[in-house]
Amino acid sequence: MKLTILGCYSATPRIDTNPTSQVLEINNHLFLIDCGEGTQVELRRNKIKFARIKHIFISHLHGDHFFGLVGLISTFRLLTRETELHIYGPKGLKDIITLQMKLSESWTNYPLYFHELTSENSELIFEDDRVEVYTIPLKHRVYTNGFLFIEKPGERKLDMNAVLNADIDVAYYRKLKQGFDVENKQGQFVKNNALTKAPTKTKSFAFCSDTAYHEPIIPIIKNVDVLYHESTFLDKHEKLAAPTKHSTAKEAASIAKQAQVGTLILGHYSTRYDNLKEFKLEAETIFDKVELARDGKTFTF
Amino acid sequence: MKLTILGCYSATPRIDTNPTSQVLEINNHLFLIDCGEGTQVELRRNKIKFARIKHIFISHLHGDHFFGLVGLISTFRLLTRETELHIYGPKGLKDIITLQMKLSESWTNYPLYFHELTSENSELIFEDDRVEVYTIPLKHRVYTNGFLFIEKPGERKLDMNAVLNADIDVAYYRKLKQGFDVENKQGQFVKNNALTKAPTKTKSFAFCSDTAYHEPIIPIIKNVDVLYHESTFLDKHEKLAAPTKHSTAKEAASIAKQAQVGTLILGHYSTRYDNLKEFKLEAETIFDKVELARDGKTFTF
Repeated sequence: MKLTILGCYSATPRIDTNPTSQVLEINNHLFLIDCGEGTQVELRRNKIKFARIKHIFISHLHGDHFFGLVGLISTFRLLTRETELHIYGPKGLKDIITLQMKLSESWTNYPLYFHELTSENSELIFEDDRVEVYTIPLKHRVYTNGFLFIEKPGERKLDMNAVLNADIDVAYYRKLKQGFDVENKQGQFVKNNALTKAPTKTKSFAFCSDTAYHEPIIPIIKNVDVLYHESTFLDKHEKLAAPTKHSTAKEAASIAKQAQVGTLILGHYSTRYDNLKEFKLEAETIFDKVELARDGKTFTF
Repeated sequence: MKLTILGCYSATPRIDTNPTSQVLEINNHLFLIDCGEGTQVELRRNKIKFARIKHIFISHLHGDHFFGLVGLISTFRLLTRETELHIYGPKGLKDIITLQMKLSESWTNYPLYFHELTSENSELIFEDDRVEVYTIPLKHRVYTNGFLFIEKPGERKLDMNAVLNADIDVAYYRKLKQGFDVENKQGQFVKNNALTKAPTKTKSFAFCSDTAYHEPIIPIIKNVDVLYHESTFLDKHEKLAAPTKHSTAKEAASIAKQAQVGTLILGHYSTRYDNLKEFKLEAETIFDKVELARDGKTFTF
């Protein structure tokens, strides 16, 4: 998996900082997560081909997470896109987009599907042969979901020396990769694990923004390889976090620790802070593996 | 008057080019005209104080002219604006903005007024003691208005030598500035034009974008000091201009010539062109005083 941070600041776009948006690549498959104003320009800056984006996930309807969506949809149209586009987000998002398309008399010339979310429970919202995506119900001022991306196990890998020694017909390779025992050209059954190796370990990623400190997400994100958890504030501004239903770096780290995640990435910083290193230092008092999101930064895992 | 171009390209925002938006300053009074995606960042880049913007004019509901508006309104709220904001634009704009405020549960904490436009005729839509703003009905694929800004004549200027020589009481200065004849301390009437000079010549600016070549606008913009007229295409792409209801540089120049304007500013360039100088050269075959809009450029007149 490869995660590209297009924007990781809260509230308003500024000259050098962008509101929330990130691209997750899983086996050459691109998922766009949130789409603040300016996202399409950041996609260009990061040289991400627009046509490769087929699925967009919107966490909630605060502007810094979706004001760039209508423009991106519109640009796809101007670029004469033909590929279908699927958008997953809170109920109401479809109305917002279609009202603007109607009034501008600019309907898309590509198939556009809205998958509106309303459930308060974690649910499977996307699945193909390579990945599953689940919602992570968060605690914020409006209805909000995080998203959990789980790579599916791939096929077993052939141990070609063993396969050739055992004299297996090529017609059986597919079945071997799928884990079946097969017979060789002499009609003898050979155990699968003598001929194949386990598939590459699959990865998982959880995106949790925006949210107050919220322990009910822990069982959902348990053991994920990478957790992006918002940390709008430092602990010294804890009194601002509670009423706005945001988290501090310390709280994000506490969630990461309890969920036993591999790595915690912090982001959604309030624009009041100049020195982001304080977020890392604060989180590291609770949890070891902490990374800071920064606009334009990529994480490969 | 001072005109700052925040964005002057058509269609989609890119790394180095912005969709339509400009700020017109008249006697320290700021008017924002159109508001494509990224406008709030361009306002910051050009160091224009957000609080000084009290009136926003939206020409039409194509995304490259208004997708930045909802974000700007939202940022004003986050900056705890108190000043009222007036928005003039096509019917439907209020629905677009309020739907998003409703779903994000983010109503403004400052007074927000929508003045929705529906007339097919030029009308006075704003007036204070310094300026009048009229619509300029344009010909485009959706309902579109340009905007005509006319500075009102200021007060007459006192010729202080003459005033002192004529022995006029200071209590009459105000009346003199307003053009009245007054009496001096000896009770003799003195003609106003012996004591005052004409006010500084007022200026006018017309914004015409987006539009096909459309002669009915000529009487409305007759003799304006500065005309911003879209020139999405060069003459060699005239066949693209007609169906999209845009203008070529040549057509913009023809309008400028017939309307006998002072200066023509070209803009709203299609992103297919790298060399903008061709627009100037083409327009200059028809009309002498041609300037090219560029993002971040200011014009003082």
